[in-house]
Amino acid sequence: MAEYQVIFQPSGRRGVIAEGTTLLAAARSLGVSIEALCGGARACGKCRVIVAEGKFEKLGINSAMSHLSPVTAEESRLLTEDERERGYRLACCAEVRGDIVLTVPEESRQSKQVILETGRERLFAIDPVVKAFPLTLSEATLDDARDDARRLLDGLSSSYRLDGLSLNWEALRALPETLRNGGWNVTAIVSERQESREVIRVVASGSAAVLGIAIDCGTTTLAAYLCDLADGEVMAKASRMNPQISYGEDILARISYARSEKGGREKLFHAIIDAVNDLAAELTSKAGFSMSDVYEMVLVGNTAIHHFIFDLDTSYLGRSPFAPAVRGALNVRARDLGIKIWPAANIHSLPIEAGFVGADNAAVILAESPYDSDELRLIIDIGTNGEIVLGSRGKLFSTSCATGPALEGAQIAFGMRAAPGAIEKIRIDDATKEPRYKVIGMEKWFPDIEETSARGICGSGILDAVAQMYRAGIVNAAGRINAKCDSKRIRKGESGKLEYVIAWASETAIHRDIVITQADIRAVQLAKAALYVGAEYLLEKYGAERPDRVILAGAFGSYIDKESALTLGMFPRVELSRVCAVGNAAGDGARMALLSREKRMEIQREAGKVAVVETAVEPDFQKKFMNAIAFPPI
Amino acid sequence: MAEYQVIFQPSGRRGVIAEGTTLLAAARSLGVSIEALCGGARACGKCRVIVAEGKFEKLGINSAMSHLSPVTAEESRLLTEDERERGYRLACCAEVRGDIVLTVPEESRQSKQVILETGRERLFAIDPVVKAFPLTLSEATLDDARDDARRLLDGLSSSYRLDGLSLNWEALRALPETLRNGGWNVTAIVSERQESREVIRVVASGSAAVLGIAIDCGTTTLAAYLCDLADGEVMAKASRMNPQISYGEDILARISYARSEKGGREKLFHAIIDAVNDLAAELTSKAGFSMSDVYEMVLVGNTAIHHFIFDLDTSYLGRSPFAPAVRGALNVRARDLGIKIWPAANIHSLPIEAGFVGADNAAVILAESPYDSDELRLIIDIGTNGEIVLGSRGKLFSTSCATGPALEGAQIAFGMRAAPGAIEKIRIDDATKEPRYKVIGMEKWFPDIEETSARGICGSGILDAVAQMYRAGIVNAAGRINAKCDSKRIRKGESGKLEYVIAWASETAIHRDIVITQADIRAVQLAKAALYVGAEYLLEKYGAERPDRVILAGAFGSYIDKESALTLGMFPRVELSRVCAVGNAAGDGARMALLSREKRMEIQREAGKVAVVETAVEPDFQKKFMNAIAFPPI
Repeated sequence: MAEYQVIFQPSGRRGVIAEGTTLLAAARSLGVSIEALCGGARACGKCRVIVAEGKFEKLGINSAMSHLSPVTAEESRLLTEDERERGYRLACCAEVRGDIVLTVPEESRQSKQVILETGRERLFAIDPVVKAFPLTLSEATLDDARDDARRLLDGLSSSYRLDGLSLNWEALRALPETLRNGGWNVTAIVSERQESREVIRVVASGSAAVLGIAIDCGTTTLAAYLCDLADGEVMAKASRMNPQISYGEDILARISYARSEKGGREKLFHAIIDAVNDLAAELTSKAGFSMSDVYEMVLVGNTAIHHFIFDLDTSYLGRSPFAPAVRGALNVRARDLGIKIWPAANIHSLPIEAGFVGADNAAVILAESPYDSDELRLIIDIGTNGEIVLGSRGKLFSTSCATGPALEGAQIAFGMRAAPGAIEKIRIDDATKEPRYKVIGMEKWFPDIEETSARGICGSGILDAVAQMYRAGIVNAAGRINAKCDSKRIRKGESGKLEYVIAWASETAIHRDIVITQADIRAVQLAKAALYVGAEYLLEKYGAERPDRVILAGAFGSYIDKESALTLGMFPRVELSRVCAVGNAAGDGARMALLSREKRMEIQREAGKVAVVETAVEPDFQKKFMNAIAFPPI
Repeated sequence: MAEYQVIFQPSGRRGVIAEGTTLLAAARSLGVSIEALCGGARACGKCRVIVAEGKFEKLGINSAMSHLSPVTAEESRLLTEDERERGYRLACCAEVRGDIVLTVPEESRQSKQVILETGRERLFAIDPVVKAFPLTLSEATLDDARDDARRLLDGLSSSYRLDGLSLNWEALRALPETLRNGGWNVTAIVSERQESREVIRVVASGSAAVLGIAIDCGTTTLAAYLCDLADGEVMAKASRMNPQISYGEDILARISYARSEKGGREKLFHAIIDAVNDLAAELTSKAGFSMSDVYEMVLVGNTAIHHFIFDLDTSYLGRSPFAPAVRGALNVRARDLGIKIWPAANIHSLPIEAGFVGADNAAVILAESPYDSDELRLIIDIGTNGEIVLGSRGKLFSTSCATGPALEGAQIAFGMRAAPGAIEKIRIDDATKEPRYKVIGMEKWFPDIEETSARGICGSGILDAVAQMYRAGIVNAAGRINAKCDSKRIRKGESGKLEYVIAWASETAIHRDIVITQADIRAVQLAKAALYVGAEYLLEKYGAERPDRVILAGAFGSYIDKESALTLGMFPRVELSRVCAVGNAAGDGARMALLSREKRMEIQREAGKVAVVETAVEPDFQKKFMNAIAFPPI
């Protein structure tokens, strides 16, 4: 059989292709992504390519429309006359009959821009685990009394070349009815993972929404995204508190609860599963769909949360040698976990790295892909547990730090979440020690207005307050409030310790003075020291003085004043312009794993390469930590 | 590297093997089955082979003990001195260092005799889907903080060369605790099926019972077997009525109930699952085990029962073109079906052939393996639905016949199950028309005793009665009772139709006359005609006059008088010596599929080749059926 040169532009991929091969098959064999929603069934008209006619001397090839099979009836129908004149063909129809150069126009390329939380964009092919395949099957007759399952699988094979699929029990149960009620026009929902390739549902054609949910399960907050798996669009967002909080504010408290209380582990498991179900219900109802339209869910969380979600034994997570039950990516059926989306849907967790460096950190790494970067990046994901990654192409280190909840506004005298009424920014005059502050939900700063709706201080406000108090000499390098500092705002609090008044009762909505206490400052010191020491160890392991770039991930990271963070020494000193915030990168990474099989594989590969550093067992940890407590760190 | 000739006797398999290869690995590469329970971990001492020393001229080889590596410590421990002197070695220890001839003694061969229901034996390798692998793992330390799942999978890989396994969620949940409580000595329960290879449970070593259950789910009766998957032994048997009977005596009634009653399908599903659970509880309790020790279950049943068990839509089974929801072998997790054995256990159904020719028939075919036979076999499985197979190597036909429940003693005036008190054999004197009969549970025949415990007539008794009535001239060729026949036992019954008294009230335990009515004879006629016509069509399709052998399967088949069956024309006339009964062949086949992966594959392959004949749609069906009603068939 004759063979010809085929070149695809703009990628320039080329190869020798046998006569009679369709352009779609040729593209696939050369690794060129062309959109073909119908899988090459000549039905969707998406796989448009443009024939480049002429002599391409550099490429050493003569290309002509006549080097392809004649225009088919489907192409006449799916392409306009104008398009056909401009050289458009459908890759699924046109067959190679000579050397040819083709351009794959932007709209036919499988890659799509996906907008991340912070508005940044990422380019990757939308290629989710679950896809819908419309089918028209022939009716069962006495002469063709194939069983319904075989008929469906044969249809998927002949229309989409999907071979070797199995049919999940859940899909099988309603199959006879669905086939006959739909007049043999149905849509098969197919899940293709490495370990299993199966039809998970069959619905009447025309009604198939194929949705997925990604949830970043934080120690304190769950942030969920409902996505259309066909195009990656976020259809709804929702968040809520992690209800496990009632069993312990921090992770160690919850691990202890799970181990020591009767039925503790079950309670923690059910609490988070209930919250996941509530989120799924809220998301689908917001977007006008049913929970059973959700066919895949990606959950990420730190190692303990991950273990709680999958009802795994957490007893040994908190003790040396901190071995998790499982590190690899997990896949469990929704039905088994009691998650009330489509029962045969898969619940996927990204791999965890080790000990406390969890799947949420893997998601951050996927979103920020430092393994593809030449510059040395320090990625700090600030939550109730801080997780830090340092590295560049070929070498990644990570660790987790017990920052405590201070930076989220918890366990702070007047701490609150970053919600309307929270003081989020503070400046203190060096001379007068008088503050100016801004409240979320109000445009102007106090005292440019007489009254505020202030009810408390959120994480970024606390960080600002402490940094400004240090700059103004209210707090010394050791973090102690200076009693000799001349200001009526410095006073003894109820506990007998000093405090600084940010807002007088009359200015606030709560009619109480809003203060920063000595204990609050201590909490900020502990948090920032934990992060600083973590980064220090990673730099030491990597063998670098300082990172090229500092990336602040997590909601908190997006709001803090970078200068305040630098002032306090939350991370090693770099130029201000080299610090950037990327929002909920864990959520972004979870969405990427939801939408792209390649990205899912990528993080399984890369997470295994991350070297995890357990700082707590380093011999000089205490010394380093004490040094890092100071402003700035010693 | 040097290579040597290795020959295994008695199979005579030989090959060239690299120096240093263990005999076990050599045997595997040459396709010689050697028992190695521990998988080659030098622990079980089962893989004994005997070195044949000397010059084997015919084989062209010199064999000597010195052509193997020295005796290892494990061999010294696991073999007696006497054995070692007789040339015994363990195949997992001894390595090839020269040409060698070995004998694999009977006890080391992997094939085992499995006793079938009727006491017949079948030879096949016990190689179940689920096996236990004992492991000793190294403790987790800070230097080796692999996750528990990885540690376990690494252990299975290094000790047993089991690679690429996944770890089921159910196994993962208790893994951390089990590893540490067991001092890192555990047993992994591994399920290896074509579609999935996974660890389904991890238990502390020493406690691992690996059990399986096979159930033949008949329309009327469920027969269950608890087997030790390690050696195939039947540890307990149990049976009970199919509780679906309360929703319809026959299959069509149940299909109609499932379709037309609200929640009908669910009721039928739950009824049979409850019965399966009751049987599993009874079996494991009898044998002193727990339900969670059961890791695999094989269920067989006719197509409708199969669909009810798996909660599949049966609406279209009863109408042309009779397409089932699925034909292929099914695998569903116990947890999903609500079967309360180990949750991650697999529930397997043999493939169904088509329409009404179900997985029970596939099991019969597996047990009787006509596809391996040169003689033409007619296999009749008589139940509420009769299923018939005809064929030999390379060509098999099957069909199902609506025999009705008459042959099981149901819907017969004095019909009852084959239980104590049932008249099971009857002889009628040609001249006097007086009967002699035998009651189950009594040794002597009436009238050799004065009274009996007779309460009714079971299937074999009914068949005997009708055949003897025909021979004695009480019934004519058309099946009508002859009013002119001179006997006080022939009389008008309550319905106004004639009947024949088998036992007077005074002889019975119920103090009522036990009779055979004209309607009873009609029911027997319909049943036997259905079977006869089915066999006739199969012979026609096959192109043969008569079978070489008639095999009667099912409990009924074991008890009937073959001569009566031949007299009435229940199947095409063959010599009496060519009719044999094999008991519950469906149950035997289900057990074989439980114990042998090869057998499971075999029936998946062979069931697909069976040509299913739908007799009801044949144009001359009515004519043939009317002819078959007569004694003997016309």
